[in-house]
Amino acid sequence: MTQRILTNELSGKVGERVHLQGWMHTLRRMGGLTFLVVRDRSGSAQAVLDDVAPLNGCLPETVLALTGTVCEEPRARGGVELHDVTVEIISPVREALPFELNKGPLKANLDTYLDHAAVGLRHPAKQATFRLASAILGAYASWMRAHGYTQVTTPKIVGSATEGGANVFGIEYFNRRAYLAQSPQLYKQVMVGVFERVFEIGHAYRAEAHDTARHLNEYLSLDMEMGFIRDHHDIMRTLTEVLRHILGTLEQDHAPDLAVLGARLPPLGDVPVISFAEAQELLATCYGEVQDEADLSPSQERSLCHWAAEEHYSDWVYVIGYPTAHRPFYTLPDPTHQTQSNSFDLLCRGAELVTGGQRIHEYAPLLAALHARGYDEAGFGGYLEAFRYGMPPEGGFAIGSERLLARFLGVENVREVTLFPRDMNRLTP
Amino acid sequence: MTQRILTNELSGKVGERVHLQGWMHTLRRMGGLTFLVVRDRSGSAQAVLDDVAPLNGCLPETVLALTGTVCEEPRARGGVELHDVTVEIISPVREALPFELNKGPLKANLDTYLDHAAVGLRHPAKQATFRLASAILGAYASWMRAHGYTQVTTPKIVGSATEGGANVFGIEYFNRRAYLAQSPQLYKQVMVGVFERVFEIGHAYRAEAHDTARHLNEYLSLDMEMGFIRDHHDIMRTLTEVLRHILGTLEQDHAPDLAVLGARLPPLGDVPVISFAEAQELLATCYGEVQDEADLSPSQERSLCHWAAEEHYSDWVYVIGYPTAHRPFYTLPDPTHQTQSNSFDLLCRGAELVTGGQRIHEYAPLLAALHARGYDEAGFGGYLEAFRYGMPPEGGFAIGSERLLARFLGVENVREVTLFPRDMNRLTP
Repeated sequence: MTQRILTNELSGKVGERVHLQGWMHTLRRMGGLTFLVVRDRSGSAQAVLDDVAPLNGCLPETVLALTGTVCEEPRARGGVELHDVTVEIISPVREALPFELNKGPLKANLDTYLDHAAVGLRHPAKQATFRLASAILGAYASWMRAHGYTQVTTPKIVGSATEGGANVFGIEYFNRRAYLAQSPQLYKQVMVGVFERVFEIGHAYRAEAHDTARHLNEYLSLDMEMGFIRDHHDIMRTLTEVLRHILGTLEQDHAPDLAVLGARLPPLGDVPVISFAEAQELLATCYGEVQDEADLSPSQERSLCHWAAEEHYSDWVYVIGYPTAHRPFYTLPDPTHQTQSNSFDLLCRGAELVTGGQRIHEYAPLLAALHARGYDEAGFGGYLEAFRYGMPPEGGFAIGSERLLARFLGVENVREVTLFPRDMNRLTP
Repeated sequence: MTQRILTNELSGKVGERVHLQGWMHTLRRMGGLTFLVVRDRSGSAQAVLDDVAPLNGCLPETVLALTGTVCEEPRARGGVELHDVTVEIISPVREALPFELNKGPLKANLDTYLDHAAVGLRHPAKQATFRLASAILGAYASWMRAHGYTQVTTPKIVGSATEGGANVFGIEYFNRRAYLAQSPQLYKQVMVGVFERVFEIGHAYRAEAHDTARHLNEYLSLDMEMGFIRDHHDIMRTLTEVLRHILGTLEQDHAPDLAVLGARLPPLGDVPVISFAEAQELLATCYGEVQDEADLSPSQERSLCHWAAEEHYSDWVYVIGYPTAHRPFYTLPDPTHQTQSNSFDLLCRGAELVTGGQRIHEYAPLLAALHARGYDEAGFGGYLEAFRYGMPPEGGFAIGSERLLARFLGVENVREVTLFPRDMNRLTP
């Protein structure tokens, strides 16, 4: 048997007899001819069938092998099509799909699509989406490795609900109680003492009973933490660079996927920086937004992004100096204004995308911060030990990978860009 | 302030005034001189101090900044050392470490080390170990991407304990019952229908009440699954190639880390292949090993690896044709001997390291296999849907990344090569 080639290799093989394998994407009869479009991992190609009998009763998604001769045909995708084709059926499909995969945009509503994600993911727009998701992970890791970061894998089963007792999933762990980690935060900080610069790509779990377009109960967090920084601006510079690398990779290597989705990535130039206090004043004055001392509301985030777009022509905006009292205990207060913190959020196209900042790296202040929040230091044994034995000034950030992709693609609901999302109501497929 | 440089950049800066930052690794007084070795993420360097007073009371792991002049000194590491040094203390350490990090091999026993992993990981041998762990992840992903695989992220919270009801951790999920996924097996198979070739790097959870040197209750699984295969030998060839790439990367990029550990990686040439039946006969005849119809015992695995080393000069051996009845339901029976399966294990240096094989890709036989094992198909909705709508012949493998590193380094206990291991008795740090 001839060696299988991929559909994207056809244009270099005009006149040759080739062998393709893939899925029946469409089968159309036009003016006495039958056009079969076969889809494989590289794309798709058209074959002109003289005899459609072997495909009788086979529906789209049937798995096929084709042998044919490559002919130039300017009207076909890639400028070629197959003639003199013999077809072999590998796995026939006899039942109609829950929705069509081969007629333009997916028409199923989100719940129906998610119920049938096992086949819905084959839709060309979904394929493009999740090739981009894969590319983001690759680009993130490659930038980190190129800049001296070591990849770490930290436990997702933890013995205590360290970052606040609410919103954690409990596990039955050999007759003991354990929890799913809300983030790798404490572990990645410990690892700064080992490698200075670390990154992790791993799941994080939040038992938040929110059923919103931006929350998942299981999400993939792109984390980093670095030592020997001056302050949080070093973290922000690093974040901007890695995002620029990811965006560049998507534009360079995935233009066809972006085109399928009609996506316009957010350009990333100089990102405006505004303090939380300034932002509050601006929002109250120019947007009539009510002030909240703790955080920006979703509506405030949208308004602030509107301001950044109007005033700075930027899809991005950094907010710094969040109130120390409303950030996690490990957040370093601004040395000159203790009520503000050396922390930041990065907003993109209307919503918060990344959280980060400088951490308290000295043992005594860290212990005091734990006590001030009423935490029991017994649950922080290993974490505190790392700081007792020499930690440099350090900080980091965490990107929710699904939110990142959603913002990049201008998609409202994060479930659209998650293979098999988990939320309050969804545990399958 | 001068820009910080790393210790591995010193040899190119002889005569220059430079600025280093890192941890006090050792501080020794010899014949009126004081030698300070400072450690950073790139290695370490020696500084000769005229005045040790600023460091009075500072113990190893103190975080320091040094400014000094680079001088040639053939007896020092890298052929250079710092003179005319000024020292600034960034984070002083005043308490003695739980064990020494700077005097040759780590002397703490495994439990003591693990209790204090937050600082124990800074030991040069541990650093080397986990740089190799990071490199394995990078090499695995880069090979996969280069060969047309898409990285996927599948849920670790699942609604039913699909691959056997025992050995799963239960989760309290919004007043419902959920479970931690034992593997991404069913999801990665589904994804073959989308991308043909997928890989995943993610946690897997086994609630096995084994307290052995080779079991972890949370481990990092390197998974792949590929479509359009002929049989399991295609999977084995792929596995051998990716392992060869990983080994080559470690040898090329991490020779110093391997040297620190005195590790000799297992050479990977032509891997001998033996069937389960042949192996049983060989083990009974030549090693007096009792036969077991279900699987190879740990003792049999050791004997078989001994045979492969003696007869084939190989640290590796493939065992194929495991009994169908004792492999998971989705395992494809050998078309010519249904009681044997198109599955394999790869053994390395005495123990099973990788499991893989060809899966049943046709819907009706898959459904029959599920029923034959007494499973309720209701728990397999999305999985079955993917096979109802066209799946090519496919298969894959799963590598336990911690076991892989342990075999590579010749380490007996997998906890030695896991940052923060989780077992029956250990949930911290």
